[in-house]
Amino acid sequence: MKKPIVPVEWRGEAVAILDQRALPHREIILECVTVEDVAEAIRTLAVRGAPIIGVAAAYAMALAAATSQARDARGLVRELDEAAVALVATRPTAVNLSWAVKRMQRVAESECSRVGSTHARVHEAVVAEATRIEREDRDACDAMGRHGLELVPEGANILTHCNTGMLCAAGIGTAQGVIWTAHLAGRGVHVWVDETRPLWQGARLTAWELGRLGVPRTLIPDSAAASLMAAGRVDLVITGADRIAADGSAANKIGTYGLAVLAAHHGIPFVIAAPTSTLDLGTPTGADISVEQRDAAEVTAPFGTPVAEEHTPAANPAFDVTPPELIHAIVSELGVVRRPTEQGLRAHLAGEPVRSPGA
Amino acid sequence: MKKPIVPVEWRGEAVAILDQRALPHREIILECVTVEDVAEAIRTLAVRGAPIIGVAAAYAMALAAATSQARDARGLVRELDEAAVALVATRPTAVNLSWAVKRMQRVAESECSRVGSTHARVHEAVVAEATRIEREDRDACDAMGRHGLELVPEGANILTHCNTGMLCAAGIGTAQGVIWTAHLAGRGVHVWVDETRPLWQGARLTAWELGRLGVPRTLIPDSAAASLMAAGRVDLVITGADRIAADGSAANKIGTYGLAVLAAHHGIPFVIAAPTSTLDLGTPTGADISVEQRDAAEVTAPFGTPVAEEHTPAANPAFDVTPPELIHAIVSELGVVRRPTEQGLRAHLAGEPVRSPGA
Repeated sequence: MKKPIVPVEWRGEAVAILDQRALPHREIILECVTVEDVAEAIRTLAVRGAPIIGVAAAYAMALAAATSQARDARGLVRELDEAAVALVATRPTAVNLSWAVKRMQRVAESECSRVGSTHARVHEAVVAEATRIEREDRDACDAMGRHGLELVPEGANILTHCNTGMLCAAGIGTAQGVIWTAHLAGRGVHVWVDETRPLWQGARLTAWELGRLGVPRTLIPDSAAASLMAAGRVDLVITGADRIAADGSAANKIGTYGLAVLAAHHGIPFVIAAPTSTLDLGTPTGADISVEQRDAAEVTAPFGTPVAEEHTPAANPAFDVTPPELIHAIVSELGVVRRPTEQGLRAHLAGEPVRSPGA
Repeated sequence: MKKPIVPVEWRGEAVAILDQRALPHREIILECVTVEDVAEAIRTLAVRGAPIIGVAAAYAMALAAATSQARDARGLVRELDEAAVALVATRPTAVNLSWAVKRMQRVAESECSRVGSTHARVHEAVVAEATRIEREDRDACDAMGRHGLELVPEGANILTHCNTGMLCAAGIGTAQGVIWTAHLAGRGVHVWVDETRPLWQGARLTAWELGRLGVPRTLIPDSAAASLMAAGRVDLVITGADRIAADGSAANKIGTYGLAVLAAHHGIPFVIAAPTSTLDLGTPTGADISVEQRDAAEVTAPFGTPVAEEHTPAANPAFDVTPPELIHAIVSELGVVRRPTEQGLRAHLAGEPVRSPGA
């Protein structure tokens, strides 16, 4: 599926990054020619979104190989190890980033261990692996889109929260990928875009993306979702997830849990779209997911413009956790898990066809 | 009850208005010396909130009398009628405003019709009536505070939405008046203040007022309310209302209905505090309340700072409607109506002590 919004692009001797900080007002491409350029872009949130920062880091490693001054394969591997340290340090909590960087290191090491290994071969293997990481993410998004289609009624009014689209993945996105797939399939969907306070990912990014893609959308304050549901103007709520525990509890952007409760009250399906890499079977329940508390200033002085008095105490939890009983279905690249349970999720990961009691 | 925040003050030959547009950053007093000064303050939202704009308009009429150049009582009444037209035109939909102005006109006319009436006597009667309107609102707020106290548990974490405090009434406010009364009674309350997008009345006004009053409070994005409830950190939700229909449905600031659904889901009492002037028995049900749709720019470019792309379609309903089955109790100056029904509300207005089935 062709992607009209490209957050990260490999250009052989550069990584082109669409600066998300300037959106939606300006589309600025950062031409990164060194590992440090890419690291800086990740650190300063010019590129954000778990899948895409993994891809950006992988291409930063490819860039390190392309611009390497090392004499031989072993020297290149050493340079790559240094680049890896710098990249992982940018955002130490982002799992996708360290996962992608480690994968690149393994490939380089493996190629270097072969008889007759050369600098050129390691370089080639590293570029191929970065390209593979990007393609896998792209394919996973496409698959989520296809699987999610069965959950989108004809002419649906879909409500979504935060940004889950082409900006945060190499592919078409997670929840928004499902929306776009439904749009392309002629379902005639319309999207209610939650503005997503405090960081306005909905207003700044999702509304902009959907506009570029020609998907009809209407921006709303987060607090307007409930009355739209009551008026029968929402047919489906779909969001992404940052982590899904073994019991099916899903952590996502603050406000998601409230939407799930409201959807249940109004008899509207609440769906999560997330790749299986988001499933964390090592976290038993939602209660085991720790929620990041962010700076109060994001609430009191959005983008530096004070709305509340200085020093007003504010709480700013970045995420909330939705329990599995409020989740109608989880869509991954492997298919759809309805009424998620630990058993259902484990079977899903094992590739078994599952019909849970609710299906 | 002494009021430390005074939105409107009568000064004999001037009306002092605290400019709410400059809050919370600056406290500017507008010294209004003509009817047009007050009309301008109402028109431009320097003073806002249904009860207080009625009081402001009443004092503008008193100002017209105090500065009148008319030769006699009849001439003064004619000047007051002209002032009334100018005042009512400022915000034609605000019921309190026209109600207060008409009441002032009736008093002037009545005094003028007496044998031996003079300019001085009409002037005196008009000032006395404005003072009475202010005192009645003050008393109603105090009564709501006292009645509401029975609904506030010791050490309660109270969640509120929008601004219902001293800035929008001559008295201590409606929902916030209950909160302040509980604070003064030593209940040890703490308030979660919804920021209240899109116009941030919570962040700008409520958080500021509670700070001035020394009531412990924490500002939150509207979307954080649900997870606080799930964590057991909310014991009571209390808001005001803009109009209550005969069936007990309550229209209030957008986001209120969602809070009521969330409160019900978590078993938390959802309470409305509003004077009986808000009860509109002429409106049969919530469905009969028309909801004002406001400018999309309030959503896309808050205070002129664009967060979404220009021309992004946005919906901006100013109010939503909460059905009576989600309302634990309505507090008015006459007492508390639990589980409101039309029968219960009519009995309440008639001053009958009522115990509905749920009580």
